[in-house]
Amino acid sequence: MKIVIINSGSSSIKYQLIDMPSCEVICSGMIERIGLETSNLSYVTHKNKIEETMPIPNHKTGLEKIARLLMDEKVGVIKSTLEIEAVGHRVVHGGAGFSKTTIINEKVKDKIKQLFELAPLHNPANFEGIIVAEEIFNTAKQVAVFDTAFHQTIPVVAHKYALPNYLLTENKIRVYGFHGTSHKYVSEKAIKFLQNSSKIITIHLGNGCSMTAVKDGKSIDHTLGFGPMNGLIMGTRSGDIDQSVIFYMVNSLGYSLADVNTMLQKQSGMLGLTGFSDLRDIESEAGQGNKECQLALAMNAYRIKKYIGSYTAALNGLDAIIFTAGIGENSSYIRKLVCTDMEYFGIEIDESKNDMRSKEIREINTPQSKTKILVIPTNEEIEIANQVYGLLSS
Amino acid sequence: MKIVIINSGSSSIKYQLIDMPSCEVICSGMIERIGLETSNLSYVTHKNKIEETMPIPNHKTGLEKIARLLMDEKVGVIKSTLEIEAVGHRVVHGGAGFSKTTIINEKVKDKIKQLFELAPLHNPANFEGIIVAEEIFNTAKQVAVFDTAFHQTIPVVAHKYALPNYLLTENKIRVYGFHGTSHKYVSEKAIKFLQNSSKIITIHLGNGCSMTAVKDGKSIDHTLGFGPMNGLIMGTRSGDIDQSVIFYMVNSLGYSLADVNTMLQKQSGMLGLTGFSDLRDIESEAGQGNKECQLALAMNAYRIKKYIGSYTAALNGLDAIIFTAGIGENSSYIRKLVCTDMEYFGIEIDESKNDMRSKEIREINTPQSKTKILVIPTNEEIEIANQVYGLLSS
Repeated sequence: MKIVIINSGSSSIKYQLIDMPSCEVICSGMIERIGLETSNLSYVTHKNKIEETMPIPNHKTGLEKIARLLMDEKVGVIKSTLEIEAVGHRVVHGGAGFSKTTIINEKVKDKIKQLFELAPLHNPANFEGIIVAEEIFNTAKQVAVFDTAFHQTIPVVAHKYALPNYLLTENKIRVYGFHGTSHKYVSEKAIKFLQNSSKIITIHLGNGCSMTAVKDGKSIDHTLGFGPMNGLIMGTRSGDIDQSVIFYMVNSLGYSLADVNTMLQKQSGMLGLTGFSDLRDIESEAGQGNKECQLALAMNAYRIKKYIGSYTAALNGLDAIIFTAGIGENSSYIRKLVCTDMEYFGIEIDESKNDMRSKEIREINTPQSKTKILVIPTNEEIEIANQVYGLLSS
Repeated sequence: MKIVIINSGSSSIKYQLIDMPSCEVICSGMIERIGLETSNLSYVTHKNKIEETMPIPNHKTGLEKIARLLMDEKVGVIKSTLEIEAVGHRVVHGGAGFSKTTIINEKVKDKIKQLFELAPLHNPANFEGIIVAEEIFNTAKQVAVFDTAFHQTIPVVAHKYALPNYLLTENKIRVYGFHGTSHKYVSEKAIKFLQNSSKIITIHLGNGCSMTAVKDGKSIDHTLGFGPMNGLIMGTRSGDIDQSVIFYMVNSLGYSLADVNTMLQKQSGMLGLTGFSDLRDIESEAGQGNKECQLALAMNAYRIKKYIGSYTAALNGLDAIIFTAGIGENSSYIRKLVCTDMEYFGIEIDESKNDMRSKEIREINTPQSKTKILVIPTNEEIEIANQVYGLLSS
């Protein structure tokens, strides 16, 4: 079964064509900077690699270009879009209505639209990807895989806020959790790799950052809550702040509530602390003595450490911590900061193993470390393909 | 030196007359329900105990009544208010300007007024107490003891939010921390009691609730932040929530920002979850099978457990946890919930010791428990008297 996986962002589309159940990636690539004159398109197969810069005005034009390449006489991998049996879409927020992978129809689209308010940076872009894919792969089943689904097992003691009860029962305000596809994928890999591991903490550090307490394979707590905004310090998002800051900024400093929202989403986090949004720049600056960058990295790691402690309490134990996603997989600097002065939790990092680069799952703790420290490359596309295949072949 | 201690709330005044340096409490009491027809006044000396119900229209009338009782021929303990050398005032928020105990003058009063926005439930009431005490004890030195002062040692990595830098440097938005007088008092008692204890967590559970990570006697992290609103679940305050809930309630549910603020301060926490604001009622209901009350207690304890884990990471170890304040000292139910399934942290409660009632400092862990569990009655009044005496006699 040939499945196209689409992860549609506000100005980008990441895509893969995957054959299931073999999990073979036939083709993959990305369109970036949609809407600019200098959009980038990449298209990679076993035999060919294409990278082009050209104006791509919108998502539809971009996905049409990809479809033409897929069917191209020279570099193509299919004869016709009829060969595509399904398109799997990453959808960030599934709200209270979606607890599992779902075939998309008009009702489902309406519901996803109603969730725009909950994930304003993500759901509208995910929705745009669905609309465009319906036109281009018009005989394929469109399937939504929700980032929130893995976290539906979080018990009420952890997913309820201490607010008047009707806000949960009527307004569905609760912890939903995000990056579930990634946390599910790497926690399953870890459990397999370690053979027996009932208490693990997965640490997803990318542009968005989050952590999950995983007990016996199930999410039992998570740092992101109702929207993808709190918890860890992210690229441009503040993560946890005292809510009284918001009231103070509006009532005493004269900000509009919309300005505060924008600030917390787009001008805070590592960008707000350092002026840089790319972690590689921040690490490089820190290495050259930039005090703001050093402090931002220390704050970032300190918060991760505190959540390791917090989730160890939720689990009453700790077998392993897992680093994943762009920063988690590649920043030995952050991993080392997080794993320093954590002997109480049985965490002892092996610095030479930490410094090695690899695309494989690997253990970076010392032999005597009671808690395993793993780096596991995440693969949300394969996980989405698995989910879609599982649903359609059942 | 005779010192009057005043803890002035919105509709109450708690007071003590303390002789220093002996720490002898000559007289103590409370005025409650100021502004109602059925105000309560209590006045307790070694020889006499008076409790009266009468209309007390405002703080001034209340404190005048107390002053008359203090000088009364039959039940009095002083001849004249001239004997009072100082009045020590609890002031909740000291902002960035006050890092220690301070003699009150016009400038100090202006600064305390400017901090009303930061602690709207507390600072105005504290201020009212100062104004009234200046009139009645007009020859005494008025001294402010700030709840935030103990937390000035929290390092920048823990007190800074991941917001644009100028919000800290220009607008002084940071973690301040509260209940400092109580956390300081009980952590010092604990260190003395245990003889050697460098890594402790103090858990103050009263109407307001907070926890402090104390390393070598100094506060290094704390659950309350910029205002006394986040962190643990409190009587009517929500504690930690995802800030995106606020934006959603205003933008999608049509609440005003002021309504959300009021809800988070006054209609949330244990009250919002159960309909009851008194923990004794909630425990009693839970015992009779009330599911909402059982869940609220479980949520409350779960959050405390997670912060124990979090601060154990901040300390990279744990010697002792300390329960204090009304609920912490009296609710064996909450203490047991918190200390259950916490073996990983060396926490093992002795249930019979936990159930014993006492006004003394006591250890309630099993003999083999690696981490000590202490119950220490807090005494903010004695701590304030100590601070005032220390300042005026230095």
